[in-house]
Amino acid sequence: MSDPKDSRLAKFKDFFPVIRDQLVSYTENQGMPSEAVDWYRKNLDYNVPHGKLNRGLAVVDSVEILLGRSLTEEEYVKAAVLGWCVELLQAVFLVSDDIMDASITRRSQPCWYRVPEVGMIAINDSFMLEAAIYHLLKTHFKGLPCYGDLVDLFHQTTFQTEMGQLIDLITAPEDNVNLSNFSLKKHRLIVIFKTAYYSFYLPVAAALHLCLVPESYTISSPSGPVTVHPYTTARDILIVIGEYFQIQDDFLDYSGTPEQIGKIGTDIIDNKCSWCINTALARADPAQRQTLDDNYGRKDPVKEAKVKAVFEELGLRTIYKEYEEKTYKDLQVKIMAIPETDEKGTLKREVFTSFLNKIYKRTK
Amino acid sequence: MSDPKDSRLAKFKDFFPVIRDQLVSYTENQGMPSEAVDWYRKNLDYNVPHGKLNRGLAVVDSVEILLGRSLTEEEYVKAAVLGWCVELLQAVFLVSDDIMDASITRRSQPCWYRVPEVGMIAINDSFMLEAAIYHLLKTHFKGLPCYGDLVDLFHQTTFQTEMGQLIDLITAPEDNVNLSNFSLKKHRLIVIFKTAYYSFYLPVAAALHLCLVPESYTISSPSGPVTVHPYTTARDILIVIGEYFQIQDDFLDYSGTPEQIGKIGTDIIDNKCSWCINTALARADPAQRQTLDDNYGRKDPVKEAKVKAVFEELGLRTIYKEYEEKTYKDLQVKIMAIPETDEKGTLKREVFTSFLNKIYKRTK
Repeated sequence: MSDPKDSRLAKFKDFFPVIRDQLVSYTENQGMPSEAVDWYRKNLDYNVPHGKLNRGLAVVDSVEILLGRSLTEEEYVKAAVLGWCVELLQAVFLVSDDIMDASITRRSQPCWYRVPEVGMIAINDSFMLEAAIYHLLKTHFKGLPCYGDLVDLFHQTTFQTEMGQLIDLITAPEDNVNLSNFSLKKHRLIVIFKTAYYSFYLPVAAALHLCLVPESYTISSPSGPVTVHPYTTARDILIVIGEYFQIQDDFLDYSGTPEQIGKIGTDIIDNKCSWCINTALARADPAQRQTLDDNYGRKDPVKEAKVKAVFEELGLRTIYKEYEEKTYKDLQVKIMAIPETDEKGTLKREVFTSFLNKIYKRTK
Repeated sequence: MSDPKDSRLAKFKDFFPVIRDQLVSYTENQGMPSEAVDWYRKNLDYNVPHGKLNRGLAVVDSVEILLGRSLTEEEYVKAAVLGWCVELLQAVFLVSDDIMDASITRRSQPCWYRVPEVGMIAINDSFMLEAAIYHLLKTHFKGLPCYGDLVDLFHQTTFQTEMGQLIDLITAPEDNVNLSNFSLKKHRLIVIFKTAYYSFYLPVAAALHLCLVPESYTISSPSGPVTVHPYTTARDILIVIGEYFQIQDDFLDYSGTPEQIGKIGTDIIDNKCSWCINTALARADPAQRQTLDDNYGRKDPVKEAKVKAVFEELGLRTIYKEYEEKTYKDLQVKIMAIPETDEKGTLKREVFTSFLNKIYKRTK
């Protein structure tokens, strides 16, 4: 028996060549020489249809939940194009962040800029992945009532992610350890701006716009009419889910075994502004703080072990467990508070519970 | 007596801090920490309000010509915002191209990525300059009938410029000389896509949209009604003007004295895919071709001199002069063929003659 998740993923993946060919044909029709057309095709193939594709799939899933039924072929195409636009945006960030972070591998292959003939051309390639988003939006949505909102949404989310990346870059440069720059407050800002908006809010907001869910609407309830602001509500919930997801990621980098997480955690060695170090800093006594200052962000496994020992002393595992339980409960309360109706074009709780249940207590 | 050109430039320059402060305030209001806000301000100040600002001023000038009168304060603000959006797009390209080209200085200061604390963060900064464009368009034009067209225009132009940059990067890598990659055809493509669209078509098309000039209109003429396609006409003329401008630039790099052009030309040493080398390649006999192959793109003044000798043998100065005269005449014919009317919202010949007269026979 095939897993329905696998077949959804396979269908979404199979749609990528359609999109790629539209983009490649466009550059051909503009008169690009064949070397440039081939380069763009390789850029798209190498950098986009990889990873878990959770963000792209979330658009398709959310549209299905909002419509309350499976999609027609035409609806699927629209949802999948939007899903791939989200994956393209992710690719823009990964290609350029890998250069800025001097990373080596990404999704089990060398980072694009490390491919010998590519090098710094990867910067222009990253911009061309971004251009693909707006070309696709124009081709598939121009003339529809959601077009302007979709374009504004992608712009806004892009700007927010770039702000998050900037805070991250100037807070935690790999070559200059200064834990006084760190704080849970700054960690929260980085997580929300650099990750949560584009990974969690963007796919759902795109689905809401595609389903023509308005900025606000009023529904009747036993206690009288209630006004719903679906985008604000979605943002408030998804930003918390996104923060939870990233804190989990940070915690798994520290606590997960290589068998679980498929890699060896390097956040301590890499001077990452992670939830773990920030939580430890907030609770460390002066001696523990000194140990953290002396050993964090150094390329030395002995120093890494000393940091880990402080994390254990401070009970990071328990603190994480408490955070996870509290966050899960708070989110459930928020989600259940959304007034629901069967009417078309309204918000559904399942949009959020489907996210939350994928994440809660994950160990990889 | 003050030169009217200087006072127009001064007024446009004085408007930059208004725009910068709007962008900086936005990041503040989004909750960015002060270090990130300060960084963004510095990014904007360092990279945008410099250079000759011809592209930005061209928007304001074109709007004045199209309206046939000086602008109200409100109209000036709109035109100047659009002008600075064009300058922001230019800044996006300059900041990222300088990294890709490993350039040292730009506009008489170190390239942004060469500022010690900046480095590869310049990539994210370049993206944040781009985000500024769409934030400004949204803030100043959302709700107006031209908004969608302006956003589409900036997207389209950005994509075209990135395609031009890609062709340039894979045609003429600085470290791998192979003149067989070059041709006048490829030179033309690079010039049109990398420079002409954003430098010449974009400012005029933005002005046309702001003045609500439609995609087509019909006017009466002595020989009957004539349909005008102002955007297509503008593109056809401005792409030729842009090509002429770049060929001039290439020729001046070769023929101009440092006193004229304010720098020492390095196109031959830098393996640039310039009009000069492509024209030479198209006319060289086998011996001259061998000299070009052996000496072009080498960091050696003796080899550079050998290339220059071939250029002289082939009569590049005469060829350039003939090209310039023919292009100027052809352009005048095209411009004079535009049917004009005093009606509002129609194309004016002066939009193009004002460009052409600034460029014709320039020596710097």
